[in-house]
Amino acid sequence: MFFASDNSGPVPPQVLAALSHANTGHVMAYGADPLTEQVTQAIRDLFEAPEAAVYLVPTGTAANSLALASLVQPFDTVFCSERAHIHEDECNAPEFYTGGAKLTLVRGGDMMTPTTLRSAIEAEGNRGVHGPRRGAVSITNVTEMGNTYSLDEIRTLCDLAHAYDLPVHLDGARFANACARLRCRPADMSWKAGVDVAVFGGTKNGLMGVEAVILFDPARAQEFELRRKRAGLLFSKHRYLAAQMQAYVADDLWETLAQQANASCDALRAGLEAHGLKVVTDTHANLLFFRAPMSLHAALQREGAQYHVMDAEDGAEGALARLVCDWSIGQKGVNAFLTALQQSKPV
Amino acid sequence: MFFASDNSGPVPPQVLAALSHANTGHVMAYGADPLTEQVTQAIRDLFEAPEAAVYLVPTGTAANSLALASLVQPFDTVFCSERAHIHEDECNAPEFYTGGAKLTLVRGGDMMTPTTLRSAIEAEGNRGVHGPRRGAVSITNVTEMGNTYSLDEIRTLCDLAHAYDLPVHLDGARFANACARLRCRPADMSWKAGVDVAVFGGTKNGLMGVEAVILFDPARAQEFELRRKRAGLLFSKHRYLAAQMQAYVADDLWETLAQQANASCDALRAGLEAHGLKVVTDTHANLLFFRAPMSLHAALQREGAQYHVMDAEDGAEGALARLVCDWSIGQKGVNAFLTALQQSKPV
Amino acid sequence: MFFASDNSGPVPPQVLAALSHANTGHVMAYGADPLTEQVTQAIRDLFEAPEAAVYLVPTGTAANSLALASLVQPFDTVFCSERAHIHEDECNAPEFYTGGAKLTLVRGGDMMTPTTLRSAIEAEGNRGVHGPRRGAVSITNVTEMGNTYSLDEIRTLCDLAHAYDLPVHLDGARFANACARLRCRPADMSWKAGVDVAVFGGTKNGLMGVEAVILFDPARAQEFELRRKRAGLLFSKHRYLAAQMQAYVADDLWETLAQQANASCDALRAGLEAHGLKVVTDTHANLLFFRAPMSLHAALQREGAQYHVMDAEDGAEGALARLVCDWSIGQKGVNAFLTALQQSKPV
Amino acid sequence: MFFASDNSGPVPPQVLAALSHANTGHVMAYGADPLTEQVTQAIRDLFEAPEAAVYLVPTGTAANSLALASLVQPFDTVFCSERAHIHEDECNAPEFYTGGAKLTLVRGGDMMTPTTLRSAIEAEGNRGVHGPRRGAVSITNVTEMGNTYSLDEIRTLCDLAHAYDLPVHLDGARFANACARLRCRPADMSWKAGVDVAVFGGTKNGLMGVEAVILFDPARAQEFELRRKRAGLLFSKHRYLAAQMQAYVADDLWETLAQQANASCDALRAGLEAHGLKVVTDTHANLLFFRAPMSLHAALQREGAQYHVMDAEDGAEGALARLVCDWSIGQKGVNAFLTALQQSKPV
Repeated sequence: MFFASDNSGPVPPQVLAALSHANTGHVMAYGADPLTEQVTQAIRDLFEAPEAAVYLVPTGTAANSLALASLVQPFDTVFCSERAHIHEDECNAPEFYTGGAKLTLVRGGDMMTPTTLRSAIEAEGNRGVHGPRRGAVSITNVTEMGNTYSLDEIRTLCDLAHAYDLPVHLDGARFANACARLRCRPADMSWKAGVDVAVFGGTKNGLMGVEAVILFDPARAQEFELRRKRAGLLFSKHRYLAAQMQAYVADDLWETLAQQANASCDALRAGLEAHGLKVVTDTHANLLFFRAPMSLHAALQREGAQYHVMDAEDGAEGALARLVCDWSIGQKGVNAFLTALQQSKPV
Repeated sequence: MFFASDNSGPVPPQVLAALSHANTGHVMAYGADPLTEQVTQAIRDLFEAPEAAVYLVPTGTAANSLALASLVQPFDTVFCSERAHIHEDECNAPEFYTGGAKLTLVRGGDMMTPTTLRSAIEAEGNRGVHGPRRGAVSITNVTEMGNTYSLDEIRTLCDLAHAYDLPVHLDGARFANACARLRCRPADMSWKAGVDVAVFGGTKNGLMGVEAVILFDPARAQEFELRRKRAGLLFSKHRYLAAQMQAYVADDLWETLAQQANASCDALRAGLEAHGLKVVTDTHANLLFFRAPMSLHAALQREGAQYHVMDAEDGAEGALARLVCDWSIGQKGVNAFLTALQQSKPV
Repeated sequence: MFFASDNSGPVPPQVLAALSHANTGHVMAYGADPLTEQVTQAIRDLFEAPEAAVYLVPTGTAANSLALASLVQPFDTVFCSERAHIHEDECNAPEFYTGGAKLTLVRGGDMMTPTTLRSAIEAEGNRGVHGPRRGAVSITNVTEMGNTYSLDEIRTLCDLAHAYDLPVHLDGARFANACARLRCRPADMSWKAGVDVAVFGGTKNGLMGVEAVILFDPARAQEFELRRKRAGLLFSKHRYLAAQMQAYVADDLWETLAQQANASCDALRAGLEAHGLKVVTDTHANLLFFRAPMSLHAALQREGAQYHVMDAEDGAEGALARLVCDWSIGQKGVNAFLTALQQSKPV
Repeated sequence: MFFASDNSGPVPPQVLAALSHANTGHVMAYGADPLTEQVTQAIRDLFEAPEAAVYLVPTGTAANSLALASLVQPFDTVFCSERAHIHEDECNAPEFYTGGAKLTLVRGGDMMTPTTLRSAIEAEGNRGVHGPRRGAVSITNVTEMGNTYSLDEIRTLCDLAHAYDLPVHLDGARFANACARLRCRPADMSWKAGVDVAVFGGTKNGLMGVEAVILFDPARAQEFELRRKRAGLLFSKHRYLAAQMQAYVADDLWETLAQQANASCDALRAGLEAHGLKVVTDTHANLLFFRAPMSLHAALQREGAQYHVMDAEDGAEGALARLVCDWSIGQKGVNAFLTALQQSKPV
């Protein structure tokens, strides 16, 4: 009953099989191997972007930071949600990789709206060289709070950004979960909606540690490659990143895994609501936030349910907690939680 | 017949087995898993350093750069060989991670001597705030040219550095090959010789991509952890780095693999010399440099031997070329090369 | 009638006289001249801080950024008001000088309170290596909105910061105006209240371009000197910075100039209120914010009054505008404005 | 008898007069004042570059570092002499401002030749993403050793750089002295010879602290302005930088001052040679290096001559020493030195 993170589950057998299959003979190092070329092409096909530059890196923080560094200058600012992972959970990595660019937080919580984004952009626009220059907009889908932007919402935010000549970065740590929720293809949620650079996350959705950064405009590809190397993120034995991504893309495994994770989350949601508990997240993917009395949280955890309780004590409707489902939870994991929920006797 | 790099071969079965074995159930993310703790302890034991802080990162460039960043300030300089990997092959990564520190090249080619190092240190010492402050000394063993510092040579360089209050970093991308060559234990070649921070390389010696950074003085451990996260180098699914290193340390696999690579290189050397060719490298480990007429290089490559020819044309004794052996070359690979050497008819 | 900035007026004759007096013969460069030593000592005396390290730099942005860089690491965050000059008006200079540290904005507008500061510090405290480490607190007195923290308020904020082991930086671009308003000595508003590093501003208060950075704990003095040089901020002909500061400190000229500027602002305030206009700023020093109909602003500016109107159009009580007085405005400048105010016929 | 530095003399009366003259009334801050506009235009006229972007900064290190940051990326390298000021005397400022770019030292001492520069550029060109990208070439005239590149030599180096698509930076800390020596106009020694960004130094040649950075291609002007502000180098009371430069440009004062300094150096050279001492510098401007027995150096310094002796002890032809003349030395200063030389009785 592990719902604390989608970084905690095992990888599917296809990934181990791909690593094993790739592990024969000698190949050129640093990404010059045939498998890397093959996977790069497969991702271009998946995204319907034949011109795109595609790069594999091992973590989401690295993917986001390199992507932002390829979009902004050190004297720029990046507009993002005040709950964005790049602001809250990457220990100043964007500031490091961009050489000191600022993150301007768009007020209003987890999701940006055209209104909140426009006012943030406008507020940064009137100080000449005194304030930072406006550099880029960063959107996250699925958001940190488990919400999902619709294709229209993404398109509207991208149009707004482009109206100010600002490129758009998409933090896609849970790209697959959002796609599965929106029942759309990767291209729909990225370049077709106006995204300039997208991170196609694999780690939270079943890989050991691989994310693809996709530059739909390849103009800055060479710069990206130099920045990746300069950051110590260019794998010499690149085939082992490529193999994982190969398995992930083959037969749309990425989608199957995301659907499994989302389905588990749906089932948890239904069970919680049936139990009379309030689920805070509106449009959920593979994570949700709900409120319950601390006594109930304590009881569930005594039963072996592992998850994060955000509040230190009960609020009006109890204490906020987060449940995250990875691809491997499945019906069995869900049932175990719901059974524990039934049996939990708040002290 | 692949001798172009030790980043090109497959990984040994023990590594795949360890990944597979680690791939069960849910564990805490970001290195809080039991396997990481176990491997960290195993490395402390291997290095006879119970207090050391040990961290796993995926590449040698990342390991070296984080290590240097934990030792120097942006206004410092790092003394290293003019052929050092940190200077020639990391695309300004040390400058990036240190926030702009300089590398001062110690003249005299591949290896530093107490004389050349002292004169470089002295030359940086007389300019007050105008020149950079002296920050650290970086040693590489095995060197880029395939030479190996003896324990006495390392100790002498470390003593010299410490006499100027400069800490010592050891680039150990081929740490195992040097250890095997010197027939010493890891502790002998690191802290017992005066090294302050060592990189225990795994990638070039059979892992998919794992290096251990060992801070023998744990005082800057917290800072290191923050820098690692800030660089996007903290793996969320850390168990898959740990598993590889677990296999590498178990039963001294690291040593066995290095001995195999070194033995292949010894056999190549003998064959080349028997063929009347000049091997340039003195004390070799798993790579060597030799000279042969361009016509012979061309013939060998027609036979399928893959390796780097450094010179564009023949010099006095022919053109310089490099042969590198990874653990997997074996007697078979060596024989194939030597047979090709026999059969090569220079045009 | 120039009230747009306190960077726009002339310098007092004492400053030109000091430059002229210092302009004889040859002296050692880079601050090794006798005048620099003498002025450094004079500032130590003025601040009753015999141990303090004192450095002169030409701009407030440079002073603040170097001060912060000497207090925090690149993976840290600095807590400041959401209106702080270091956040809004320095084009990412703090991020540049600190190597990418973050600024965490304390909500609640212009002034921090123990409540708002504590909640901001607490919010950054629970994310391990994922969020930035808590690094320092930055206070501005006089604030950007013209408010002045009392000595008790500063002391309370410093005590709070120190309770979290965070050092305190004081942005003193208008240090003198705050001191004059609080009728206190420099020591009272700095180290005696708990400030660790203070900027004693001269530029806005009558110098051509000199600010003193005072490290009350000299432990990081050498690092500061290296950072200053590395930033191109160490003047070779340092005596010309020193001469200006010499004139500024002699006979407490800094205080006299600030009293003049504050008195002009008081007179403007009285006149505006007598005219029935609302002055927004509570505790003012040499700048104030007031509201008036756009038509009145237009009329005043036709009369030759130069100042910034913040709003684009009238709000409830008119449009917000800012008046700033430098030392040279005097009774004449004030009267000119108030006369214009009388004569202004809103269209 | 002060020959230790050209940063040690007084400023000519015209500079103080200009400061005094500029010190009236209120003007817009941050360079929006009429005097700045006027001086900017005057420099464009002086350099026959009507399109050029011109910026004033207070130090040579700041000027060089901002110039380089506007030319290269953090993953690039800058080619310069191994004696270049940007490498030896700026405490990693270029690394800081460029975000971690490397300086590649062109072997062969003080001056670069087409041969040495080409070989350095070629050596950096064959490592793909492993080595830094080739970014720019930096030339210094007058060099650190007091040599002067001819116009042909500059043009040849610039042509070579441009053949590799590398822009050229000219460190002109002693631009005026070189111009006076070469009897050419500023345009001849800069854009007409192929220089892309030039620093027109004022500080070493009589100003309190002002250098002009001239971007002959204004394409990166906006970026430069943001970088200048981000570095805390944008003066709020900009008129006081402008006034100094105004005096410097008016009636070619810059040239007159440089001619005086050069003439003093010529006279010293003649005197030293007449005394049988060896002057090392070939083509000198306002500084020279000569050799004399330590006993003679000691005797001269007892007589009151202040200058740097480079060697710690006598070499073959004595110990190397440096004499630098600023504009204010004059016949009087020269005679005093030569008289001391006559009277010096080596012990």
